[in-house]
Amino acid sequence: MSVLVVGSTALDSIKTPYGENPRLLGGSASHAAVAASFFAPVKLVGIVGDDFPKRYVRLYRRHGIDLAGLQVAPGKTFHWAGEYEANMNNRRTLTTELGVFETFIPNLPEAHRQTPFVLLANIAPALQHHVLNQMRRPKFVVADTMDLWLNIALDDLLKLLRRVDALVLNDSEARQLTKEDNVIAAAKKIHRLGPKYVIVKKGEHGALLSSPTGMFISPAFPLNKVVDPTGAGDSFVGALMGYLAGRKGAPEAHLKRGMIYGSVVASFCCEGFGLTRTTTVTRAAIEQRARQLKKMVQF
Amino acid sequence: MSVLVVGSTALDSIKTPYGENPRLLGGSASHAAVAASFFAPVKLVGIVGDDFPKRYVRLYRRHGIDLAGLQVAPGKTFHWAGEYEANMNNRRTLTTELGVFETFIPNLPEAHRQTPFVLLANIAPALQHHVLNQMRRPKFVVADTMDLWLNIALDDLLKLLRRVDALVLNDSEARQLTKEDNVIAAAKKIHRLGPKYVIVKKGEHGALLSSPTGMFISPAFPLNKVVDPTGAGDSFVGALMGYLAGRKGAPEAHLKRGMIYGSVVASFCCEGFGLTRTTTVTRAAIEQRARQLKKMVQF
Repeated sequence: MSVLVVGSTALDSIKTPYGENPRLLGGSASHAAVAASFFAPVKLVGIVGDDFPKRYVRLYRRHGIDLAGLQVAPGKTFHWAGEYEANMNNRRTLTTELGVFETFIPNLPEAHRQTPFVLLANIAPALQHHVLNQMRRPKFVVADTMDLWLNIALDDLLKLLRRVDALVLNDSEARQLTKEDNVIAAAKKIHRLGPKYVIVKKGEHGALLSSPTGMFISPAFPLNKVVDPTGAGDSFVGALMGYLAGRKGAPEAHLKRGMIYGSVVASFCCEGFGLTRTTTVTRAAIEQRARQLKKMVQF
Repeated sequence: MSVLVVGSTALDSIKTPYGENPRLLGGSASHAAVAASFFAPVKLVGIVGDDFPKRYVRLYRRHGIDLAGLQVAPGKTFHWAGEYEANMNNRRTLTTELGVFETFIPNLPEAHRQTPFVLLANIAPALQHHVLNQMRRPKFVVADTMDLWLNIALDDLLKLLRRVDALVLNDSEARQLTKEDNVIAAAKKIHRLGPKYVIVKKGEHGALLSSPTGMFISPAFPLNKVVDPTGAGDSFVGALMGYLAGRKGAPEAHLKRGMIYGSVVASFCCEGFGLTRTTTVTRAAIEQRARQLKKMVQF
């Protein structure tokens, strides 16, 4: 089955201790859509300006991504510039130029409204609502978010939580949302806000799934060199959703393994700037790394 | 087989958001010895003053800990006082009164010198050397350490690393020792300093084993309430060593499972002040939590 990915499509200028790269393909939807494309057909919904490089359109196409929902508007593509410190856990935003993204309304092509798997990648909760309002009985809805929306659109986000099967957020966001220092306690509190499944991303420390049947601890794939972590979280959730869409039966039954594939694709993402490493990956390489990761947690 | 545990024996006055408790039984050797005692016979080597409460001697004895190597000297027992912040990851030392610990020389009773498993819990590297100098061909030697020794006794520590099978240290210490921001890269560098096995503790994020046959990712047992994390790292390595000593065959073959038991006992440690929770635990409760933890990582 296919996955609808709605989120930001951007150009990222990124500086890390390993180098500096301007105007890479970025944005939550780009990372998530490419990651999902290894497992299932993907429909991307986003907006770019008329400066959007043709090579990035070709990149999406090489991954078989349906671009009927990618709006092209007069003006500039969303541009983000940021810099990472040596430990890669702290980053500083240098520039945020919203461009055409400022007026983005994710109106879905008719053909997209019956997509069974919906990934509401990181965008304003109001836009995530707008997408859900257009969908016809999706099978599984996952929302990602970020601290910005907790700060400026909390009410919208809280309403959204009642409409999704799973919420994905990082540990500091889980703490902020629940005012609870302990991440496990925070995850449990989030269930009461709506989502049956809560996935807390912890970067290099992996991710946690809290579900009605208990916890699952998903490891990160250990890397001895992180070149650029931008988009790793989006890759994680994109691969997870792609994996769920590619399997038969209840999506819930595949969440654990989906998170493992999420960790694997996120690890490839971190090995290069932007999407440069992810786009060179094969399904076989993903399977191999998933097997390695399994070996590293078995005892 | 039995475990020799050498380290500090102290009285800890601890304040956390859950309360304040003066003069609890603490110290690296106390936590490690009690943790190890669930799995194998333990010989403790340490020093206390003549103010050391009799109830703590009885506590050791209840755990079957051999106290022939516990020196009692005129003066005061090592006293540490500290306070944790709300997130439990930051702690502040309020008082360090070394007392009799200042002149501690771990001279071993004759009967201790053939103990097959040696845990050099956190004490000055010079004292860890002194212990090894007295041992007769131990089967497996593990050393723990702390940032203090990296700062003031690095040469002694580097020499020690050539004499141990495994080094246990936390992630910030691994970074400090190797001047390497990436923990995986840091672990690999530490092998070159001597230890065949490197275990990096990451607190609530679990621990990593780097060995000649690859990495093992050991989860922490998820707790929704951490009352007092003091001694969790010592409990981890104590339980690990106890487990190794309690198994037949090459210790190396049991390291992964040993780390799981280490995580489990460390989780109990965090549920109460000092050793108050750990000392109420049964082997059956440990086995149950180990099974739960296994379920949380299986997919």
